[in-house]
Amino acid sequence: MTKAGFDTDHPIGVAVLGMGNVGTEVVRILQNQADDLRQRVGAPVVLRGVAVRRTDIDRGIPAELLTTDAAGLVARDDVDLVVEVMGGIDPARQLIRTALEAGKSVVTANKALLADYTGELAAAAEANRADLYFEAAVAGAIPVVRPLIQSLSGDRVNKVVGIVNGTTNFILSAMDETGADYEVTLKEATRLGYAEADPTADVEGYDAAAKAAILASLAFHTRVTAADVFREGISKITAEDLETASALGCTVKLLAICERVDGDGEKDRVSVRVYPALIPRKHPLSAVTGAFNAVVVEAENAGRLMFYGQGAGGAPTASAVMGDLVMAARNKFYGGRAPGESVYAELPVAPIGDTPTRYHVNLQVADRPGVLAAVASEFANHGVSISTVRQEGHGEGARLVVVTHLANESALADTVAAVTELEAVTAVTSVLRLEGTAE
Amino acid sequence: MTKAGFDTDHPIGVAVLGMGNVGTEVVRILQNQADDLRQRVGAPVVLRGVAVRRTDIDRGIPAELLTTDAAGLVARDDVDLVVEVMGGIDPARQLIRTALEAGKSVVTANKALLADYTGELAAAAEANRADLYFEAAVAGAIPVVRPLIQSLSGDRVNKVVGIVNGTTNFILSAMDETGADYEVTLKEATRLGYAEADPTADVEGYDAAAKAAILASLAFHTRVTAADVFREGISKITAEDLETASALGCTVKLLAICERVDGDGEKDRVSVRVYPALIPRKHPLSAVTGAFNAVVVEAENAGRLMFYGQGAGGAPTASAVMGDLVMAARNKFYGGRAPGESVYAELPVAPIGDTPTRYHVNLQVADRPGVLAAVASEFANHGVSISTVRQEGHGEGARLVVVTHLANESALADTVAAVTELEAVTAVTSVLRLEGTAE
Repeated sequence: MTKAGFDTDHPIGVAVLGMGNVGTEVVRILQNQADDLRQRVGAPVVLRGVAVRRTDIDRGIPAELLTTDAAGLVARDDVDLVVEVMGGIDPARQLIRTALEAGKSVVTANKALLADYTGELAAAAEANRADLYFEAAVAGAIPVVRPLIQSLSGDRVNKVVGIVNGTTNFILSAMDETGADYEVTLKEATRLGYAEADPTADVEGYDAAAKAAILASLAFHTRVTAADVFREGISKITAEDLETASALGCTVKLLAICERVDGDGEKDRVSVRVYPALIPRKHPLSAVTGAFNAVVVEAENAGRLMFYGQGAGGAPTASAVMGDLVMAARNKFYGGRAPGESVYAELPVAPIGDTPTRYHVNLQVADRPGVLAAVASEFANHGVSISTVRQEGHGEGARLVVVTHLANESALADTVAAVTELEAVTAVTSVLRLEGTAE
Repeated sequence: MTKAGFDTDHPIGVAVLGMGNVGTEVVRILQNQADDLRQRVGAPVVLRGVAVRRTDIDRGIPAELLTTDAAGLVARDDVDLVVEVMGGIDPARQLIRTALEAGKSVVTANKALLADYTGELAAAAEANRADLYFEAAVAGAIPVVRPLIQSLSGDRVNKVVGIVNGTTNFILSAMDETGADYEVTLKEATRLGYAEADPTADVEGYDAAAKAAILASLAFHTRVTAADVFREGISKITAEDLETASALGCTVKLLAICERVDGDGEKDRVSVRVYPALIPRKHPLSAVTGAFNAVVVEAENAGRLMFYGQGAGGAPTASAVMGDLVMAARNKFYGGRAPGESVYAELPVAPIGDTPTRYHVNLQVADRPGVLAAVASEFANHGVSISTVRQEGHGEGARLVVVTHLANESALADTVAAVTELEAVTAVTSVLRLEGTAE
């Protein structure tokens, strides 16, 4: 039994929107692996066309497959599935909506779009019994969207911590390895093609924040958008920060953290944040270097799981797109649908001020008796408990390095403000969060 | 639109077969997380009964839910889904078949059964449009079955290497750490509950071989059964082997290896094998210690992926069962089906003799000139290329340590036989395979 109109001879038509790195690979696989795809789907999967900005470039495929009319391609009667790999909000958003409203399933890798418009798109998919798949939107080739939606659907996820941006991980890994400063390393990353000409979306954490919003929505069955994510980038990380981290047996990673905060009898809340943090070198995420990605999921019954692999690049991202495409095509052929959006839990998002974290605070201080006591008093006054404090150097270069127990962001901010006012404190040179350490 | 008879008020009835570690946790989750499960499925999920061997033990659930009549429970009209966590071949095989033939979907964690009877069970599922899910059969809580079936369905898997047996990994990790011998460590593992009273299935690699058969079938779209898997256990691994490994910057792991062997123009073949092997300490699988599991998948486009987590235990395994159960229940409610078995590729299984591996060979030799040359000649005579050779000690304790380039199992076996015959060679004290190293 198959759905009306689909049988083993009736091909499933695919439109690809965009032919950048990912689109090019998707088109290549559709053509080279046609036999395998046919076997895995149950019917031929046929590329109907590719929407591009310019058709006058030789892209290695027959010219008649190229069109600048994306809307026209999506609307074609012989297009059953749409792969959106053009990126950006408009016109991707409208094209996907149009496809879904026509009952056509959509596979997209567009994290920025999903971070803000999953609700709207999922509703369109639901109303028209179409599929909306987006494994490629988070962590490239690494299966993490499907495991969260399906494999962990009978568990209760408490935390998701990921390295989900390859550019920043490449930069931080290089800084850790070479001791070079941020600006130098960014320049090198740009030269090697790991950073874009305008690196803002990556280095300021916007890309990671979009992925964090998607991961948190899936993990907690709650609508989380990019605006709900507290975000700090890596552009203020210095060579000295990496050095300090190293002295503590840590390294610095840009982490996307999605956490269930116990509601103490009330409803649980979720905290979603992206920032650079110290993590111990023994933590599994610390070994994730270069442009690789990894996501750690902690669930009540499963315990700690880790997913690791290539988080970007044409072929890896295309692998995730193709997996979704085969599943969507199978659903066209056999009936059935992807598990839809699930936001029933509706957990409130906790403000960053309420989120307990451990901190590592670097202070430049006067080298005289009583300084440590004065600083410690301010921490105590604001209810921030100190785990360790270490005095380094002397004379004008004297430093205090304070590591706290779990403290709220707001209490820590007040503490730092108060400590800065102390006469004996020359400057607070850095405040870094610590993750993955025992309290 | 839902399938006939299922709506948001009509509950989906579940039968659980077996109430050991995993069954107990499944029952607990079904009861404690009922609200979440209802939201995620779309309808209530209700436990109809649990089949056990004895009903006269207090198991913390109402006595009327317990029955010794598993077949009667499966046959009940109000049972839509069957969770098989009793283990063993019979009666599990017949109970699952009966359920599937009645159109009831089945979730099972039974790797031994699946390794030999997936074909029969998948056919029954297909013929009756029921689902057969088995994420929990391999690597406990770690999503690896679903990623292979779904996420990588648009890619071409070339290799799967896993640590998929917690007992042997616990023993080898402990031997590596303490320097103790196998027998001592096994005894300790038994005392701590990591090894069963009769540890044969684990230590001789039968459990890992069953999982390897399942993984290879999924990875290569080819029927592979336990009998196709070359298998060697860890019971002959000595403290000296671990020491030698350490000297080479390696450790020893029991690996399940599923590999596509290029067919050189002919059809590709698959090699599936379980044995202890040296792996470099820098290899990601080397850091997987104790009872943890990890599976590395190499695919053409995705590149190298790793999945890590708890491979056994009641709650972790139950997490995987529950994920499958929610998906199967959703399919009952919304229509649609799990992707079924896919063995279209029908790749032949390569005999172990044809499988190229690197080897580490330890020889006890006479301490006199010309020994190295004589040994090296025998390797050359059999077409086994040597990567490094090291002479250690002198007098009666003189040893040669040979590391080969890629060699066929049969060529290596012939070489070892020939070398053993050499007058200057007292004994071949160990032959270990090397994995995860560059050629």
